[in-house]
Amino acid sequence: MKIILDAMGGDNAPEATIKGAVKAIKEIEGEIILTGNEDIINKKVKEIYGKETIQEISDRITIYNTTEEIKMEDIPTQAIKNKKDSSMVVGFRLLKEGKGDVFVSAGNSGALLTGATLIVGRIKGVDRPAIAPMLPSYKKGVMLVDAGANTNCKPINLLQFAQMANVYLKKIYHIKNPAIGLLNIGTEETKGNELIRESYKLLKKEAEEHGINFIGNIEGRDAFTGEIDAVITDGFTGNVFLKTVEGLGRLVKRTLTESLKKNIGTMLCALPSMPSIKRFSKTMDYKEYGGALFLGVQKPVVKAHGSSDEQLFYYTIKQAANFAKSGTVDIIKKEFEKKT
Amino acid sequence: MKIILDAMGGDNAPEATIKGAVKAIKEIEGEIILTGNEDIINKKVKEIYGKETIQEISDRITIYNTTEEIKMEDIPTQAIKNKKDSSMVVGFRLLKEGKGDVFVSAGNSGALLTGATLIVGRIKGVDRPAIAPMLPSYKKGVMLVDAGANTNCKPINLLQFAQMANVYLKKIYHIKNPAIGLLNIGTEETKGNELIRESYKLLKKEAEEHGINFIGNIEGRDAFTGEIDAVITDGFTGNVFLKTVEGLGRLVKRTLTESLKKNIGTMLCALPSMPSIKRFSKTMDYKEYGGALFLGVQKPVVKAHGSSDEQLFYYTIKQAANFAKSGTVDIIKKEFEKKT
Repeated sequence: MKIILDAMGGDNAPEATIKGAVKAIKEIEGEIILTGNEDIINKKVKEIYGKETIQEISDRITIYNTTEEIKMEDIPTQAIKNKKDSSMVVGFRLLKEGKGDVFVSAGNSGALLTGATLIVGRIKGVDRPAIAPMLPSYKKGVMLVDAGANTNCKPINLLQFAQMANVYLKKIYHIKNPAIGLLNIGTEETKGNELIRESYKLLKKEAEEHGINFIGNIEGRDAFTGEIDAVITDGFTGNVFLKTVEGLGRLVKRTLTESLKKNIGTMLCALPSMPSIKRFSKTMDYKEYGGALFLGVQKPVVKAHGSSDEQLFYYTIKQAANFAKSGTVDIIKKEFEKKT
Repeated sequence: MKIILDAMGGDNAPEATIKGAVKAIKEIEGEIILTGNEDIINKKVKEIYGKETIQEISDRITIYNTTEEIKMEDIPTQAIKNKKDSSMVVGFRLLKEGKGDVFVSAGNSGALLTGATLIVGRIKGVDRPAIAPMLPSYKKGVMLVDAGANTNCKPINLLQFAQMANVYLKKIYHIKNPAIGLLNIGTEETKGNELIRESYKLLKKEAEEHGINFIGNIEGRDAFTGEIDAVITDGFTGNVFLKTVEGLGRLVKRTLTESLKKNIGTMLCALPSMPSIKRFSKTMDYKEYGGALFLGVQKPVVKAHGSSDEQLFYYTIKQAANFAKSGTVDIIKKEFEKKT
């Protein structure tokens, strides 16, 4: 198992990527290849650990030297085409050439999507790859597909999102018969815009053939009850959904903390219940649920959260190893071979 | 000031509507007219208060007897056309005839929208009326327009939503220069689907002429920071947004309560901070922000939440009185007269 990690991607790189890799390597079998500027990485290693090179910390972590970086503000297609020696493009190339089993990056999301599609390539039969993060739900997570890869979708795309989510939830989360719902503004089949009404019909017709437990239309309020495993939607609505969850999560954290600290009396009184509050905040923090997978590309690609810290890189690397080991991508390939 | 209240509408009617009216009448000047079945209402009054009629409690509450009821499962257009003597249709009729100043109902949302449009009528120049609830944000509320009245929209509709929100926030919330944003999946003007891209252009072009402080595209994560006063979107996306907030709000409440009660030790420890937690839950509960207004109809109509209890009806009735008194509807009329 070889995990390729874009050492330069994300708001806290390369410190957080290095620390995350060092922490994760102790718990995973296999190697981590860091793509990035060797000098910068080793300088940081010296700063953090007082060692000359990262190999002195673990001989299972290596650096693949690159000279460029894709920035958050770069235009995705241009960046992927022009920055051939960037940590991201090189990561994708190593993955494609079989020099690694999975690629993890917290870099520019649009560039990641472009790279996944242009360099690694779509699975034959999958019209549109999708981004699939896990969000917090009651006592477990809920998968969102598509979270923003495809602004404009057709019903066939949504059916394929459901097929891929189904395989993924079965293989990685060991859910026997994942409950998959279509995000709508009511549960009746006449509800929604044209895309959703047509997608409903298609899903209803094809679900059985694909072994999908399609539970019909669901509303945002149903998504977090713990009874639904995947929410299927177009990338525009899905991205609004994702960012609304994120925004509300921040509001919750901020308001709760301030409520408790409103005056010293309350703060002192609140101290005993802080572990519970922390546990709660953790449940609500969707970042705890790790990175988002790119479903529908030829090899496993995981998008880490842009603001990932050491802990989250550690978690996302382990998740990526699990994703690669599960063979989900090959099963998705077979699923789509049947049809084509 | 005469407030017409649909006594039979909502999950907890008529008990919650009666109690809410009795509580609200003490604090408002004017009268409340309950539309609904007189026998059922007075029987409930006897049960709750031990009085023969509601007039014995307050001579400023009267009943306008109706014999039918629109159910939650009724098809909106049919219900409005066929149930002429329902508490909802009669409420709308009284409003239209000037026998009341504002109509409040927690009944079937689709029927309310149909009734508002068909019976009360659109304001001249407003192509599509919209539903506008207030949602929790940091230290204040944020208005969402449209929350579900119009599944399919054109750019002109979104511009008009912004115009109406602008008047409303100035008049009712006394916000000098409300910050109005367009809900999108990125802040750049090239982002989003065609509707949103075109709406962005139109809003940017026309905002100044209408005195709108258009702050451009916003994402769901920006909506709750307290820096935005209104989120403009189509009814499909808006309804997904609203219900996601609702669902996540419930998850927060449930998870937090259970985190604190996990074991008796924690529960006892948590007791001192309970007032803070309650204050927090209240901030997060979007129902605390009252009913949703119908913007763009000839007279003030307020949709109370379907699951409203006594407290929420009390609050929504007061909000409705405020809405009617503010003259917002007349100002919206003038705003649109200018253009037509």
